[in-house]
Amino acid sequence: MIAALAGGVGAARFLRGLVEVVDPASVTAVVNTADDDDFFGLRVCPDLDSVTYTLADAHDQDRGWGLAGETFATLGALARYGGPTWFGLGDRDLATHLFRTERLHAGAPLHAVTAEIARAWGLHLHLLPMTDDRVATRITVVDDTGGPPRTLAMQEWFVRERCTPAVTAVAFAGAADAAAAPGVLDALDAADTIVVCPSNPVISIGPILAVPGIRERLVARRDRVVAVSPIVGGAPVKGPADRLMAPLGIEVSSVGIARAYRDICATLVIDAVDAADADRVAAEGVRPVVTDTMMRDIGVAAALARTTIGALA
Amino acid sequence: MIAALAGGVGAARFLRGLVEVVDPASVTAVVNTADDDDFFGLRVCPDLDSVTYTLADAHDQDRGWGLAGETFATLGALARYGGPTWFGLGDRDLATHLFRTERLHAGAPLHAVTAEIARAWGLHLHLLPMTDDRVATRITVVDDTGGPPRTLAMQEWFVRERCTPAVTAVAFAGAADAAAAPGVLDALDAADTIVVCPSNPVISIGPILAVPGIRERLVARRDRVVAVSPIVGGAPVKGPADRLMAPLGIEVSSVGIARAYRDICATLVIDAVDAADADRVAAEGVRPVVTDTMMRDIGVAAALARTTIGALA
Repeated sequence: MIAALAGGVGAARFLRGLVEVVDPASVTAVVNTADDDDFFGLRVCPDLDSVTYTLADAHDQDRGWGLAGETFATLGALARYGGPTWFGLGDRDLATHLFRTERLHAGAPLHAVTAEIARAWGLHLHLLPMTDDRVATRITVVDDTGGPPRTLAMQEWFVRERCTPAVTAVAFAGAADAAAAPGVLDALDAADTIVVCPSNPVISIGPILAVPGIRERLVARRDRVVAVSPIVGGAPVKGPADRLMAPLGIEVSSVGIARAYRDICATLVIDAVDAADADRVAAEGVRPVVTDTMMRDIGVAAALARTTIGALA
Repeated sequence: MIAALAGGVGAARFLRGLVEVVDPASVTAVVNTADDDDFFGLRVCPDLDSVTYTLADAHDQDRGWGLAGETFATLGALARYGGPTWFGLGDRDLATHLFRTERLHAGAPLHAVTAEIARAWGLHLHLLPMTDDRVATRITVVDDTGGPPRTLAMQEWFVRERCTPAVTAVAFAGAADAAAAPGVLDALDAADTIVVCPSNPVISIGPILAVPGIRERLVARRDRVVAVSPIVGGAPVKGPADRLMAPLGIEVSSVGIARAYRDICATLVIDAVDAADADRVAAEGVRPVVTDTMMRDIGVAAALARTTIGALA
């Protein structure tokens, strides 16, 4: 049994490779929901949907989010009504948000709706939100005009403001009072291997670890936890991890990842270009495993997954 | 000042003609909302939207509903989640429903949201729902398989079952407890002319008259009320009026319309093909006005509107 902590695109690619090399039914992915937000009254869960669409081979590879062959007629028409149209809601993607929102309004918990969506897309792994409760990443940024610091929702900072404002603090509102979704803690207890996917350590893995009980499980089972570094050659493979790590005092390198994760994992997979960092990773008390982590295609992702799982075998 | 009771397509065409011949700002349209329903959690108001889109010259003329040039990507994608996809939700139309639903959830009353939508489409007439409260047409039909009678929502009977099941009764759930939307009764009091648009008398005009205070206003001001018959040559110009009138004992003719409306209007505009019915209309105590009522284009609609308003001049 394998449990994986997952954010968005990087985790989705890793999991897509993983289900090539192990029985998908043996995998439970615990996905960050602190990026979730409401647009036009619809609950949008970017990381859950990235994982779902990628595992269904339905994602848009070039754009990096949403569905391949997507259209944006509804979003264009929403502009007439003066609402915020900076968040890319595709027409087919909207069907997922409509279904999810209606089910949530009907009283279904997010983990049940997530399972329904995963089943509709033909997924065989267990896909779980980290929690059924609302947790919201809040990013405090410097105001460029000299005003007081502003606090933004994740999507506001990431999509609307294109990660431009300098970050001074990150918080996960609601996390301390959130309960891990049913199945999450059991999956962590039962797993032979727990994988921390190559996701943003601050705003993707950070919120999952902030849900009471999850970090504690990983600390207790540290020897069975292997992480994959999302930092290659001193920069994130994708996304704004560097814009978040540096201001919070995390070195933007595999070593920084090792230092951030050393309490929760005993093994860290780093990219071959960072082989020279292996000694510094080991000096943090984390065993380095060096391989190709650039998931250019499913084949590389599968090889990375095999190496990652194999590291604890 | 002109007030108009309006259903869907027929009323929309009439109103489109009306705003060609009078100042739109002098017109208040009071629109049926008993066909409104929720699909995937979104509030859909078919008659309000038909009127809005038609007045904005944005409606699909061939299909008879929705927006011209519409696409249906979201609806197609919803099929994956097993929901009911028999109701034609277009991608651009969805923007209207999303906006309306979000505003209603935020506590805005339907009449305020309706005004916002009308403004977004550049309308200059006053568009009002008959009520801010929920009223729902319930159609009791014979069960073809020999089972007990079934009760359907309007859209279920009209769209999903294509008006096929024979109707035995029609009710307007919630109407007795509904309050006319702010502005409705004032508009009826202030109007020099009240027009009953060429709409289905049972399920479009019927629910409006069932909202307390509205029928009473028309009865009291009967001499200032002029209706346009939706029946031409013994059949509805559009829609299933005959499938609803006959079972409820209303003759499917201009005479039947005169009989149904004689308490609320003193004048009825009938089509030239029904000129021979004029005496029978008059025998019901309703003054017939004979003209071309087939609104093939805006020009005919404008001429019909001029004749209708002029009938009380």
